[in-house]
Amino acid sequence: MSTKPKLFSPGPVDVAPETYAAMCSPTIGHRGKDFEELYASVQPGLQEIAGTTRPVYLNTASAWGAMEGSIRNLTRKKVLNLCCGAFSDKWYDVSLRCGKEADKVQVEWGEVITPDLVRAKLAEGGFDTVTLVHNETSTGVLNPLADIVKAIREFDDIMIIVDTVSSFSAVPINVDELGIDVMLCGVQKALALPPGLSLMIVSEAALERAKELTDRGYYFDFHEFEKNHAKNNTPSTPAIPHIYGLRERVEFMLAEGMENRFARHAATNALTHEWVAKHGFKNFAPAGYESKTLTCIDNNLEIDVPGFVKAVRAKHNLLINGGYGKVKGLTFRLSNMGNETLETQQELLDALDDVIPDFL
Amino acid sequence: MSTKPKLFSPGPVDVAPETYAAMCSPTIGHRGKDFEELYASVQPGLQEIAGTTRPVYLNTASAWGAMEGSIRNLTRKKVLNLCCGAFSDKWYDVSLRCGKEADKVQVEWGEVITPDLVRAKLAEGGFDTVTLVHNETSTGVLNPLADIVKAIREFDDIMIIVDTVSSFSAVPINVDELGIDVMLCGVQKALALPPGLSLMIVSEAALERAKELTDRGYYFDFHEFEKNHAKNNTPSTPAIPHIYGLRERVEFMLAEGMENRFARHAATNALTHEWVAKHGFKNFAPAGYESKTLTCIDNNLEIDVPGFVKAVRAKHNLLINGGYGKVKGLTFRLSNMGNETLETQQELLDALDDVIPDFL
Repeated sequence: MSTKPKLFSPGPVDVAPETYAAMCSPTIGHRGKDFEELYASVQPGLQEIAGTTRPVYLNTASAWGAMEGSIRNLTRKKVLNLCCGAFSDKWYDVSLRCGKEADKVQVEWGEVITPDLVRAKLAEGGFDTVTLVHNETSTGVLNPLADIVKAIREFDDIMIIVDTVSSFSAVPINVDELGIDVMLCGVQKALALPPGLSLMIVSEAALERAKELTDRGYYFDFHEFEKNHAKNNTPSTPAIPHIYGLRERVEFMLAEGMENRFARHAATNALTHEWVAKHGFKNFAPAGYESKTLTCIDNNLEIDVPGFVKAVRAKHNLLINGGYGKVKGLTFRLSNMGNETLETQQELLDALDDVIPDFL
Repeated sequence: MSTKPKLFSPGPVDVAPETYAAMCSPTIGHRGKDFEELYASVQPGLQEIAGTTRPVYLNTASAWGAMEGSIRNLTRKKVLNLCCGAFSDKWYDVSLRCGKEADKVQVEWGEVITPDLVRAKLAEGGFDTVTLVHNETSTGVLNPLADIVKAIREFDDIMIIVDTVSSFSAVPINVDELGIDVMLCGVQKALALPPGLSLMIVSEAALERAKELTDRGYYFDFHEFEKNHAKNNTPSTPAIPHIYGLRERVEFMLAEGMENRFARHAATNALTHEWVAKHGFKNFAPAGYESKTLTCIDNNLEIDVPGFVKAVRAKHNLLINGGYGKVKGLTFRLSNMGNETLETQQELLDALDDVIPDFL
């Protein structure tokens, strides 16, 4: 078997050997004390990291399950999807596929969702749910979460669902202080687990709203999660290896300290930005709204992106990403999320320096 | 950390070290060649095991996700849920929670779904979907799948969804020959992986039916799975460790040979039944309809089941199950599914022999 490249793509990311080791802890029965202890062991740490007193539901599905589930739990009238890239755009499509009425604010890929755009759209009336992707992974844009939440709160009776898939644990997100109704994320981004699990934090108000929906199903039903959480358990058979891995990562994060962790991501991100500027590339995201966990690089120098990605892999066994969806090749992406340090990020950038002369 | 007991509960079951080792293979990007190769590598083996030329969708969710998803994909009028235990009963409840019209055939727990019962109910008319749990894990009943399918096929326009969660790969199930529309299963039962993934096989007819449903969503949408399968991929970010583990288990099964595998399960099951008879217990399932992967034992001797389960764990570090739901304590369950051999199953029974005199 060939040695697989180290991942510097924006999720999944490189997984630490300690995390894999934890995932290989003995499988346990999920309807007994052993699992209850495991479940309970991750709650205080996750709550601290997310700034919430609410439970953190452990959802055996990738984040799209949580994104669809949130719509099915909360939208009784009409959802407003805030769209600025591949994942946020798709959420609109998924809302429709759930049989919901949906409308959107759409900005160009690479642009930012602004509070004014949200305010103007909500003023049209009829909405009871808003979805926002905090860090749009396809474009490297970090939307102004707090300001958008404030704008939405000028309107009544609106549930706010925020996807923090590629920002959670890398930048400060205080769920209770923000007053968002659902925060969801995957684990294969800054949390640096392999994919296969997502997290959901659901407000009391969202639980109330969910009661009005009679077709919200079972697998992603917030009330099933809440009921089972009271017993330190999950509605359905959980991905036990991932929860073991999550426990290991939570302990790692708390030992690191969240301020240090945020600073580490900011530093590796800044280092990557230096590389971008040094070669005359530009960030795809507008200044001040760049993601802190990945860098989406505008291919303004018109290099052969697929060739570059391939050469970096062939020569250095590192995997970077050649852009997503309709900006594939027009952009490329470097991740700094998860376990990367200034040293390991520099290793990536040195490798890129080595290869790029052939492409300029 | 205390050493966790070996699992003889009917799922999750004991996982082989080789499977864990495979699960720790390097995480790969899921939108590229590395993942496509992994995905493609498991298809022929799984198709052979399931007796189908259709794709085997890899669904990052436990089986309840697939069970709910099947309802959302297929039921446009009314579903008939065949109910004979905790899991099949719950499927009726889940159907209602999806906002579907549903009715049921309900037999007592421990009884079998008969073709005549199904026929009589379907004759009332109005149904377009039937759900069957092949091996009802809560009661240890193996329903007569082929005969039930034949009975259903006397009626037009009905989609047949079969949950083979705790029978797949342990008893012969030839999906194409049976002519069922959806076969779904988890991986933490006879496949002997840790939980976190389920499999779905969906007929062409089911894909046609699904087109009529406009609110089937995204995460479990059959058409998304079909479309992505054509690219050796999955709609959402997949549980990569589980798919590596699945590849290892598929190779194991093909090397073992399916006939040998079925024979092994039959033999370990028969050995367990001998233990039941020897002590004057009875099977909870009627003669001829006993599960081949687990034994649900009628506690006709009225032993202290929780005490017995606890003592077996304390003295031998083995975990058996003290019954599920409303037959908890009135039954207890011993699994023989997955990797158990006559030798390892005998180790369990010897341990039970050692402990049970204190409880009779």
